[in-house]
Amino acid sequence: MSSRELIVLGSASQVPTRHRNHNAYFLRWDEEGILFDPGEGTQRQMLYAGLSSRQVTRICITHFHGDHALGLPGIIQRLSLDSAPHPVEVYYPASGQAFYERLRHATVFMDKATIVPRPIAKDGVVAKTKGFELSAARLEHSVDTFGFRLEEPARVQLIPSRLAEHGLSGPRVGELQRRGVVEVGGRTVRLEDVGEKREGQSFAFIMDTRPCANAGRLARGVDLLVCESTYLDSEREEAHSHFHMTARQAAELAHEAGARRLVLTHFSQRYEDTAPFVQEAQALVPDVVAVRDLDHVEVPKRVRAA
Amino acid sequence: MSSRELIVLGSASQVPTRHRNHNAYFLRWDEEGILFDPGEGTQRQMLYAGLSSRQVTRICITHFHGDHALGLPGIIQRLSLDSAPHPVEVYYPASGQAFYERLRHATVFMDKATIVPRPIAKDGVVAKTKGFELSAARLEHSVDTFGFRLEEPARVQLIPSRLAEHGLSGPRVGELQRRGVVEVGGRTVRLEDVGEKREGQSFAFIMDTRPCANAGRLARGVDLLVCESTYLDSEREEAHSHFHMTARQAAELAHEAGARRLVLTHFSQRYEDTAPFVQEAQALVPDVVAVRDLDHVEVPKRVRAA
Repeated sequence: MSSRELIVLGSASQVPTRHRNHNAYFLRWDEEGILFDPGEGTQRQMLYAGLSSRQVTRICITHFHGDHALGLPGIIQRLSLDSAPHPVEVYYPASGQAFYERLRHATVFMDKATIVPRPIAKDGVVAKTKGFELSAARLEHSVDTFGFRLEEPARVQLIPSRLAEHGLSGPRVGELQRRGVVEVGGRTVRLEDVGEKREGQSFAFIMDTRPCANAGRLARGVDLLVCESTYLDSEREEAHSHFHMTARQAAELAHEAGARRLVLTHFSQRYEDTAPFVQEAQALVPDVVAVRDLDHVEVPKRVRAA
Repeated sequence: MSSRELIVLGSASQVPTRHRNHNAYFLRWDEEGILFDPGEGTQRQMLYAGLSSRQVTRICITHFHGDHALGLPGIIQRLSLDSAPHPVEVYYPASGQAFYERLRHATVFMDKATIVPRPIAKDGVVAKTKGFELSAARLEHSVDTFGFRLEEPARVQLIPSRLAEHGLSGPRVGELQRRGVVEVGGRTVRLEDVGEKREGQSFAFIMDTRPCANAGRLARGVDLLVCESTYLDSEREEAHSHFHMTARQAAELAHEAGARRLVLTHFSQRYEDTAPFVQEAQALVPDVVAVRDLDHVEVPKRVRAA
């Protein structure tokens, strides 16, 4: 089990099918569990995936269409039932505050969990931890919608041979890491002398939207890009009129942004077979997965720059 | 396929399991389809059951706990998506008006169906059609809760041999049915001379509640009684403290009310096997079913009184 992976809880758009529930995605990122766009039935899909509500630390809602948000009340109520000990932050478009309130208090329950509303009014960073920065940017859908990007900060990775070269070992290494610089035998050694900068892993979540500049910004160089592809490119006009994307457009986004692995999802119920989605995207991006419910997709590891 | 049957869409109480979704029951009654207590995920369960939202003509909500109501937004939104041509009446405890409003407008959608709210403030008849009378009565749960009873009006069934005896045939029979009385060869013939009164079929839906007088009233002589039995009788105290019933208590209710077939459901997730529920109830009621999701249960036909 990877410590950073996407678990697909649902992959249908508006209408669920026998094999696809409404949207919902759980991103396991070290000790955090970020739930994206919980559609109706997410709490039961989590059960099938072997996930407990107590593993959810944050919830991101791109927009308030039912297939992206109707699972929120069930999850919030489950957090109370399961006596989740930690606060759970919920990010959503500020313009949908009324919908948030309705879902938050949809039915009667013992409200025991700590749910922290984090309405998003404009593009920018919405959360920052030691392990990542979470940011949001407005997309182009028929209702106010934000996509998300999660990015691990760059770190300096120490190279053992260079440490030895500079005569550094034991507690002096810790000192170097803390202070960024140490004196060794009268010489100054800086962190960059004995290590290399290593970019953090990154992830983007883009739905629902037409192709737009912000989608490109969110997806810039990410290791894992989850992108809606409601339609095949033969339905590009329909996609446009409904503010959605095709598999080809998702691949163009991934290609232009330099994303490493592309996850296609949010399929219209008209498609039984998603092989054509992969075909369409692979013309531009080699690493493409058209996901099914309960799939696990690893966030590709960073390979060290030469 | 019976024209009057119960289709179980979910049979779990608060916590769904791998095999049981939250509550939801579809009662097919001639041309009507009455959806009771749609828990989260009901729209997808309907798909598994081969039911379309367009078959739903009424929705009954006993109370506003999540497992009985969180599927309402999805169904209402599906009625719009499916362009349901008929109005759908929704019955619910009037004290839960705020919850109804939140569920009714939980997320953004094109509101194209006609949804008619019918808040219930007190015991009594809530709807009357040619085919049935639907009534509600307050139960004893931790929040305001109503049970339901559906009853077909009694009819006089004509006996061919008696019609012949009185020299009645053709249009004179229609006249008798319309007017209740005709003159034949100088003699007066009344409907009851040539027919027998036949009670209509009836159905009751009791959850969630402690045993109470109104449960008995709703269940009086029904052909099919759907009753919650969250616990086995060994957990009678827990049932009491949570305002629920045990299988034994459901059977006592059915027995005392003279219900003909008892459906046990709304099981706590602690039970894997429901055979003990049937055993416990069969001590008092011969015809008992502990239902599973997607079960069909026929409303037993009335046998003609001797």
